Amino acid sequence: MNSFGQLFKLTTYGESHGAGIGGIIDGCPAGIELDLDLIQAELDRRKPGQSKITTQRNETDTVQFFSGIFEGKTTGTPIGFFIKNKDQHSNDYNDLKNVFRPSHADYTYTQKYGVRDHRGGGRSSARETIARVAAGAIAKQLLSKLGISIQAFVNSVGEIELDKPYTELDLSLTESNIVRCPDPLTAEKMIARIEEAGRNHDTVGGTIQCVATGVPAGWGAPVFNKLHADLGFAMLGINAVKGFEYGSGFDGTKLSGSEHNDVFVNDNGNVKTVTNNSGGIQGGISNGQDIYMNVAFKPIATLLKEQKTIDKNLKATTVNPKGRHDPCVLPRAVPIVESMAALVLADHYLISKNAKF
Amino acid sequence: MNSFGQLFKLTTYGESHGAGIGGIIDGCPAGIELDLDLIQAELDRRKPGQSKITTQRNETDTVQFFSGIFEGKTTGTPIGFFIKNKDQHSNDYNDLKNVFRPSHADYTYTQKYGVRDHRGGGRSSARETIARVAAGAIAKQLLSKLGISIQAFVNSVGEIELDKPYTELDLSLTESNIVRCPDPLTAEKMIARIEEAGRNHDTVGGTIQCVATGVPAGWGAPVFNKLHADLGFAMLGINAVKGFEYGSGFDGTKLSGSEHNDVFVNDNGNVKTVTNNSGGIQGGISNGQDIYMNVAFKPIATLLKEQKTIDKNLKATTVNPKGRHDPCVLPRAVPIVESMAALVLADHYLISKNAKF
Amino acid sequence: MNSFGQLFKLTTYGESHGAGIGGIIDGCPAGIELDLDLIQAELDRRKPGQSKITTQRNETDTVQFFSGIFEGKTTGTPIGFFIKNKDQHSNDYNDLKNVFRPSHADYTYTQKYGVRDHRGGGRSSARETIARVAAGAIAKQLLSKLGISIQAFVNSVGEIELDKPYTELDLSLTESNIVRCPDPLTAEKMIARIEEAGRNHDTVGGTIQCVATGVPAGWGAPVFNKLHADLGFAMLGINAVKGFEYGSGFDGTKLSGSEHNDVFVNDNGNVKTVTNNSGGIQGGISNGQDIYMNVAFKPIATLLKEQKTIDKNLKATTVNPKGRHDPCVLPRAVPIVESMAALVLADHYLISKNAKF
Amino acid sequence: MNSFGQLFKLTTYGESHGAGIGGIIDGCPAGIELDLDLIQAELDRRKPGQSKITTQRNETDTVQFFSGIFEGKTTGTPIGFFIKNKDQHSNDYNDLKNVFRPSHADYTYTQKYGVRDHRGGGRSSARETIARVAAGAIAKQLLSKLGISIQAFVNSVGEIELDKPYTELDLSLTESNIVRCPDPLTAEKMIARIEEAGRNHDTVGGTIQCVATGVPAGWGAPVFNKLHADLGFAMLGINAVKGFEYGSGFDGTKLSGSEHNDVFVNDNGNVKTVTNNSGGIQGGISNGQDIYMNVAFKPIATLLKEQKTIDKNLKATTVNPKGRHDPCVLPRAVPIVESMAALVLADHYLISKNAKF
Repeated sequence: MNSFGQLFKLTTYGESHGAGIGGIIDGCPAGIELDLDLIQAELDRRKPGQSKITTQRNETDTVQFFSGIFEGKTTGTPIGFFIKNKDQHSNDYNDLKNVFRPSHADYTYTQKYGVRDHRGGGRSSARETIARVAAGAIAKQLLSKLGISIQAFVNSVGEIELDKPYTELDLSLTESNIVRCPDPLTAEKMIARIEEAGRNHDTVGGTIQCVATGVPAGWGAPVFNKLHADLGFAMLGINAVKGFEYGSGFDGTKLSGSEHNDVFVNDNGNVKTVTNNSGGIQGGISNGQDIYMNVAFKPIATLLKEQKTIDKNLKATTVNPKGRHDPCVLPRAVPIVESMAALVLADHYLISKNAKF
Repeated sequence: MNSFGQLFKLTTYGESHGAGIGGIIDGCPAGIELDLDLIQAELDRRKPGQSKITTQRNETDTVQFFSGIFEGKTTGTPIGFFIKNKDQHSNDYNDLKNVFRPSHADYTYTQKYGVRDHRGGGRSSARETIARVAAGAIAKQLLSKLGISIQAFVNSVGEIELDKPYTELDLSLTESNIVRCPDPLTAEKMIARIEEAGRNHDTVGGTIQCVATGVPAGWGAPVFNKLHADLGFAMLGINAVKGFEYGSGFDGTKLSGSEHNDVFVNDNGNVKTVTNNSGGIQGGISNGQDIYMNVAFKPIATLLKEQKTIDKNLKATTVNPKGRHDPCVLPRAVPIVESMAALVLADHYLISKNAKF
Repeated sequence: MNSFGQLFKLTTYGESHGAGIGGIIDGCPAGIELDLDLIQAELDRRKPGQSKITTQRNETDTVQFFSGIFEGKTTGTPIGFFIKNKDQHSNDYNDLKNVFRPSHADYTYTQKYGVRDHRGGGRSSARETIARVAAGAIAKQLLSKLGISIQAFVNSVGEIELDKPYTELDLSLTESNIVRCPDPLTAEKMIARIEEAGRNHDTVGGTIQCVATGVPAGWGAPVFNKLHADLGFAMLGINAVKGFEYGSGFDGTKLSGSEHNDVFVNDNGNVKTVTNNSGGIQGGISNGQDIYMNVAFKPIATLLKEQKTIDKNLKATTVNPKGRHDPCVLPRAVPIVESMAALVLADHYLISKNAKF
Repeated sequence: MNSFGQLFKLTTYGESHGAGIGGIIDGCPAGIELDLDLIQAELDRRKPGQSKITTQRNETDTVQFFSGIFEGKTTGTPIGFFIKNKDQHSNDYNDLKNVFRPSHADYTYTQKYGVRDHRGGGRSSARETIARVAAGAIAKQLLSKLGISIQAFVNSVGEIELDKPYTELDLSLTESNIVRCPDPLTAEKMIARIEEAGRNHDTVGGTIQCVATGVPAGWGAPVFNKLHADLGFAMLGINAVKGFEYGSGFDGTKLSGSEHNDVFVNDNGNVKTVTNNSGGIQGGISNGQDIYMNVAFKPIATLLKEQKTIDKNLKATTVNPKGRHDPCVLPRAVPIVESMAALVLADHYLISKNAKF
């Protein structure tokens, strides 16, 4: 239950306040040159303390590789890696040992396992996603050699939303601001909205959009493992995600078929569609057009103010968390969304090799 | 790639215009009394020709069981089953052999496999879901013995939407009308909207909501296989689905954390939440409250009118499908959504047994 | 638990006295031309009643394909197939309903499942292997197009054993006699030994050797799924098998390393080993030499004479089976062994495609 | 391909001369008290340099646990662990970079992956088994709480063989001598045989027998994953293993059915068999009697003397390894065999929970 992918497979371990977070990538082909600095750069996009709108926890999050890479290339054997935990204030969590925080995993974990590591959320902490970013950064490099790029950005924060489709935006601007929105004006509003939430000791949610370009036609599967089903599964497995849609998504349900269908044309010898309501996927299989999707994140549950709840004896009590927490998870979630998309696509790249004899 | 589930596992086979559709359920525990009539009744809810707003194809869709059931009970061995295809008008598809229908799987299948069975969409046909309904009907009976019930209904058709939450509706009315909407007045509007689409030789999309009650706290998993990620994967694997959300979903991204959090209370010795934005799942694990989700269906791509497209030589052409097709997939998709939810929950029931020593 | 293989995956269902035996092959690539007569021919090699030394049950064992094949070629979608049961004398088994036959699965099944289909052994019947032969026949055709052939033969019956290595035998003679031993003189002795067992209402065991030629170097895996581990797993999953060895096997444990090591030489530009104690596999991966292995079959447990045992209330009783049974399983097991080897190799062919970028 | 087990799942990584060897155990239930000293003690049974008949490499092999254990108990989340490599003489292997050592994985790895880490065999090194011993030690503790014990011992070294069945031996004497044979006189002869091989710069093989007592009836599966097939797969995945048999094994093929069948009797209210040719497994499922098996190990391929071979350009050359190597792998393989058996049984314990509703 802690593995992801069929052929390009990531297995992770680690708790927020244990020794660290790590993982194994099994199935990465041999002979891929890896730039380890690029991997660390992805972790830095995710790390806490990177700007005024993220938690001020100070984690360097340096990844160590234990195996599977020799003389700068993958060897085809499993890649073991580890990111040490640092700067833990485990005592911040002592008060929470016997209390079920609202909308956290405290109660459900206790019901499932009987025991739990209460420090920092244990396994339910979003810190686990660091392993996905490390693995995703390797998947990205594999895909990059195939001409595929994956770019995510913040599409909305609370009510503040980008009002243009991604095709009218310059996605290279995404990293130019701390909220990771490619439109500078909207970015400013989003930052202000997050700062407001922080001042209120409250939190705010939003959506991330992710676009994959260069995926060739023919990746995916007809039935259960449709390409978008694997992408949706990947995204819904990220902490705080509540919804997923691709292509025309929920809005597309309001169109008629004649408005929604994407007409095929011959584009200088290539098959192209005039519109892209399909989001680059038809019948569960990529059609060569851009793949795009939206991911909904709830406002995170840890508020730095008093809330009512019950303890493990079902007695009414209050909870008032200490610690350093993000008022909005969106900016740091951008590389996580990209990583999960990269893991799915790397997996389907390998799967695609066995479709034809 | 044609299997679903980890411990309660369904594998399916079959094409629209081949001999039939079938499957194997592997992992169903021994000793469950099965009512075979109830299984057939679920297939009947999905079958074509059941009302004036569905396709008029006449398929009896009778399921045969080949194994795994002895003297009315499951034996713990794999359950093989088969539904024969009937009433095929394969010649209706001859014109489509070399043409890529807009927003269908014709082009993507050809890219993946090199060859394809063009008759009726082959493996990409929604007829494949009949195997899921047969298997889901068994999963439902297993869950029913645990006090769990699953009910889906049509929540919107095009712009016509239910304006109340499910908690204010009488879900027992769902089967009282042909569109499967529990509010009779809204149902009438939806039926009219579908009939309008049919008259226009066009199609219309919509959303289905699904509610599972009675799921105990503790089912699910912390990381990749979060309960809602498995549910989302299941739903996104249904033909024509474009989006999935659970609990507060996409709308929840606009709330602040203090509005969104669900406060725990002691309800006569049981843990309860006052609100249910979590949709019954926290940290990927059920919390004992109702699990509810929305599934977005696009308007289906087969229009009974002429559309522009290209053929396999990339030459411009038109397509004008014959055959008998649904103007709206929603009413017949209700049992499919329920079935997929049942398969996920039956799987997590089995998984839950191994969480504690 | 009823699936075999990772990428070329077979799932089977069916009981001895139910409707039939069937299966699904998932993962067979598209575009392979199949000769359906060759598949039936393999089933005929396995079928009962084929000679005076096999059971006289009369089963035609005709396979029907339900999907995944179109215009004579695989389509890449799952291949569903079914073999109807016939000529059942279920009443022969009524006496056995409450009795645990010695060295059968009656007791262990009851302990595992609580219930069991007692007729003809239910799922534990060797009739289940018919699905493996059908699937193996497809795997064989795939491998044949790659220049790989798989040949098994009876190596020993009781104390009667071939006294030459396979390299000194003409394996094309295997099918020239009813016991499937490539040495005609030894075959005669084996047949006499089986007839003697039959006259005594007793049974006799033996070993089957299997040789795969033409497997290229580089198939297999370094750690758990070593090529010989997957082959051993495959063989040990056949009914009545008690042991597996490859290359030098158990005898090789008595050699010193300097006797056992296979020296590499340059054979006209190809890598070759002078000896082949490695059995064509080194470090779990094929080295291009012949792969050969031995499979040990116990004397089957069904004796047509009275034996002591207990019933389900643990009371002493006797069992005296009726029905028509093989005095020796070996001749009919030859195609089963070949089929399991073919399934493993077809799987590793697909796996091998993803080792290098 | 680097994972083992279905529900109690071990995934490993690491090369001989990389940073270290590690793994993840996924699926271990919550709430098991672990004695970490017992885990280290198992690693010490496997470690080099432990006696005069093993390699004199000095590796402390200390295991670190990174996750999944809290306050002395398993938490149900994945257990990540790591054993650092030490005392590496990587330069000993420089000469071997371009040479294919006889009966090693050098050639086959190169064929599979294109590249390889030549130092100390890389991933093909038996050092990888350290991760299996660490995981097996946890599985053993789980099983021990269920009353199950697993004991392996050296059954033969070259021609020197134990001449009694295990039932007539005192297995508690196994650890009383450095070769791990429970019969002191035979142990002396085995030690002398190994020392002789060492003096000759040669190596010697042998067999290990493994006995599991206390396994309840009902564990296993009817078809592919028969309990003995999973055990055989586990053992054949250990470096240098060439064969596996259980119960009567290869010798059993020479018995007639009436000699081989195990008669059931009522033993004070328990089902028992008078003989145990079945090796505790019938129809692939445990019957409550002792499970016993033999595992054949070839003489290891690394000889400390000159041997002929070819290099990667297919030129004739010689190889004359330096380094410190075992003349016989058997004594150190005893805990590895036990560990693999423990992993299989822990897995089937979890699987068994879902057989009945």
